[in-house]
Amino acid sequence: MKRTILFLLLAGVLGSASAEVATSDKHAKTATTYRQSVFQLLRSNMAPLGGMAKGVLPYDAEVMQTNALRMQQLAEMLPDYLQTDTRKFDVDTDAKPQLWDNFADVEKKAEALKAAAMKLEQVAKAMDESAYRAAIGDVGASCKSCHDEYKAD
Amino acid sequence: MKRTILFLLLAGVLGSASAEVATSDKHAKTATTYRQSVFQLLRSNMAPLGGMAKGVLPYDAEVMQTNALRMQQLAEMLPDYLQTDTRKFDVDTDAKPQLWDNFADVEKKAEALKAAAMKLEQVAKAMDESAYRAAIGDVGASCKSCHDEYKAD
Repeated sequence: MKRTILFLLLAGVLGSASAEVATSDKHAKTATTYRQSVFQLLRSNMAPLGGMAKGVLPYDAEVMQTNALRMQQLAEMLPDYLQTDTRKFDVDTDAKPQLWDNFADVEKKAEALKAAAMKLEQVAKAMDESAYRAAIGDVGASCKSCHDEYKAD
Repeated sequence: MKRTILFLLLAGVLGSASAEVATSDKHAKTATTYRQSVFQLLRSNMAPLGGMAKGVLPYDAEVMQTNALRMQQLAEMLPDYLQTDTRKFDVDTDAKPQLWDNFADVEKKAEALKAAAMKLEQVAKAMDESAYRAAIGDVGASCKSCHDEYKAD
């Protein structure tokens, strides 16, 4: 019985996605560069959408579709790019240490971003102008919910 | 007649993808950061594939599939991320100036990268181990053909 529980616990740990701890300074620095690159690309797609939601830029359904698709693709990549735990090394990062303590939650939040971006793509495809602002807002809220927990200000 | 030719010339210029010239130092720096981020993600996908082709890492058809798909997605994004001409500003970049003179060629090379990555994904899906090395080599050759022309050493 005890052995079964131990086995299940271990399987649970091994099955989680937070698998990798950086093994050298170079490894940690490279992983940090990659991690930040995904966020730069997310930002590059979100910025014009935010401008549209705020009324600073005119609505552009084609840009919405393209950027929403790209954000889905990047959200799908996110867990792989975040999973390398760089805490032991001196890297220049805004990642809070708890990112790697709560990795299942991080994965859930990446899924939520993907879902919000899919919704935005649908709304843009349907040219449903009355729904643009809320759909962009949901994508932004999904970014924020993860930043609030895991990104230093 | 002359007016028609002028119109067609203008339409051709406006229709080309090399549309945008950076308008400020900030714009140029942001565009450079985004541009370099796409290449970092391409590199992160190519590195393990290169290791497999060289026999330093064991073949892993699942990693090949995932990374080939991601490289297709990133190749599809490339022209948009490269099109902002930052030559007039003091940015830290390896991009050669001719990148923006020959942008139609750059787009063609991005298409070629996408095609090579699609081929690799198919080969990996078919688990055709005899074709892995050549398919990875073609992806690498496609990276190199663009770097040779448009990336400073």
